[in-house]
Amino acid sequence: MSTAQPGMLYGVGVGPGDPELLTLKAVRLIRNADRVAYLANGEGRSQAREIARLALAEAKAGQQEIPVVMPMSRDRTLANKVYDEVAIQIAQCLRQGEKVVFLCEGDPLFFGSFAYLLERLQDSYSCHVVPGISSVNAAAATLAQPLTLLKESFAVVTGRHTDEQLRQTLQQHDSVVIMKAGEARPRILAALDAAGRRDDARYLEYIGRDNQQVEAEVAQLPAEKGPYFSLFVVTRHQRGDSG
Amino acid sequence: MSTAQPGMLYGVGVGPGDPELLTLKAVRLIRNADRVAYLANGEGRSQAREIARLALAEAKAGQQEIPVVMPMSRDRTLANKVYDEVAIQIAQCLRQGEKVVFLCEGDPLFFGSFAYLLERLQDSYSCHVVPGISSVNAAAATLAQPLTLLKESFAVVTGRHTDEQLRQTLQQHDSVVIMKAGEARPRILAALDAAGRRDDARYLEYIGRDNQQVEAEVAQLPAEKGPYFSLFVVTRHQRGDSG
Repeated sequence: MSTAQPGMLYGVGVGPGDPELLTLKAVRLIRNADRVAYLANGEGRSQAREIARLALAEAKAGQQEIPVVMPMSRDRTLANKVYDEVAIQIAQCLRQGEKVVFLCEGDPLFFGSFAYLLERLQDSYSCHVVPGISSVNAAAATLAQPLTLLKESFAVVTGRHTDEQLRQTLQQHDSVVIMKAGEARPRILAALDAAGRRDDARYLEYIGRDNQQVEAEVAQLPAEKGPYFSLFVVTRHQRGDSG
Repeated sequence: MSTAQPGMLYGVGVGPGDPELLTLKAVRLIRNADRVAYLANGEGRSQAREIARLALAEAKAGQQEIPVVMPMSRDRTLANKVYDEVAIQIAQCLRQGEKVVFLCEGDPLFFGSFAYLLERLQDSYSCHVVPGISSVNAAAATLAQPLTLLKESFAVVTGRHTDEQLRQTLQQHDSVVIMKAGEARPRILAALDAAGRRDDARYLEYIGRDNQQVEAEVAQLPAEKGPYFSLFVVTRHQRGDSG
C-alpha cells in the first residue's frame, strides 16, 4: 500500500499566443508541476511550450518535461497510437503521486487535443481542467469588434465542415467564427460569397504572435491555402438594437 | 495644446468568477490604471469588481473607481442613457491622458456590456480589449467534458431566442451552449425535449463562485425560473471518431 498523495492531471489552457494571456491559475500550476507535457512537432518545437515559457522558467526544482511528438497526418490511427502511449506514461506518473500538467494552446476543451487524453485517463485518475482564452475571444479582442450582442446567435464551424454546412451556418447565425481555416480557405471564401456575407467577414492568422496578420477586406485575400492557425470572424455590420 | 500622453480605454475581461482566472495582462492593467470602472447594481454591488478584488487591492496610489449603476430593466432606453453618461465621463478622463480600465465579467466582447461603451468611444479614443475566459469555456472545464471535437459544430444561443430558434439550433449543431438561461428555463427544457436532446444536456449556475451548482441530470431540474447566471451545455454523448 502506498502512502503517497494521489496524483493529479491538469489540462491547462495557455491561451492563443501572448504569454501575458495565461491565467494566474495556469502560471501557479505550471510552476508547481512535477511534469509538464505538451505536443511538439517533428523538430521538437511546441507552440504551447513557447507560450508558457515564462512560467516554465520559474518552475520548481526537479520539474521534468514530456514532449509528445505528434505526426502531422490526417490518419487518426497514428495520432491515437501517440495518445495511447502518452496516456500510459502519464498514468505511471500519476500512480507515483505526481502532479502532471498538460499544456494546451487556447482552451483545453474547445477543439483541443486534451479531450483525447481525458477520455483515456479520467475514469481512473483525478483530472482537473483549467480553461484558457480561446482564439475566438482573442480574435474579437484583436479586432475590437463585439462577437455577439444580446439577441444575436453565434456559431463556430471549422474548415473540416462541408460547403453546405458552412453556407447554412453563415445564413442562419448572426455571428460565425470559422476556425482551422488554412487548407479550406478557397472553399470558405466561396461559402462566404454563396451566403452573401463576404463583406461581414474579417480574416486573422497567428493571433497574438509576432507574425499576426489581420485582413479586414476579405476580398483582398487570395483563394489559396493559408496557415493552420487562421480563422474568419463574421459579424453583422448593421446591428439593430444598439443599447 | 496639451503635452499629456494620450489616454487609453481598456476593456478587461476578468473571467467567470474565480479570481485566479484573471490573466496576467488583466492584473497588470488593473493595478496600473488611473480609473477603474464597472457595472454595479442598485446596492452598489459589482460582480466584476468582486472577481478583480485581489488585483484592485494592489492598485497604484491615487487610483479612483467609477461604479456605474445599471438599472435592471428590459427597457433599453434606461440602459442607453446610463451608457451615454458613463461614456461622457470616461471621455473626460481619456482627454486628460488617463488610463481607464472597464472591468467585464467573462469576456468583454462575448455577450458583454463593453460593446456599448466601445461603440460610443472607439471612433474618438484609443481603445484596447483584453480577452477573458468566457463562461462557455469555464463550464466545459467544470464539467471536464470536451465542448467540441474536430468535426463537430458548435453554437451559442441565449434564453432570449425563440422556441423555434432554440429547437432548430439544438437539432443542427453537435454542441450547443444556452446562456442567460434563468428566466427562459421552462422554454429551454421544452426545447431540449422537442429536439430530443434532454439527455445530452448539463446545467450549471454561478460557475466558479462559492454558490456554484451543477446538475448533470437535467430531468431533475424544476421547470421554473432560475438565476440569470446559469447555462446549459449540450454535447453528443456518443462521439464517433475518438482520436
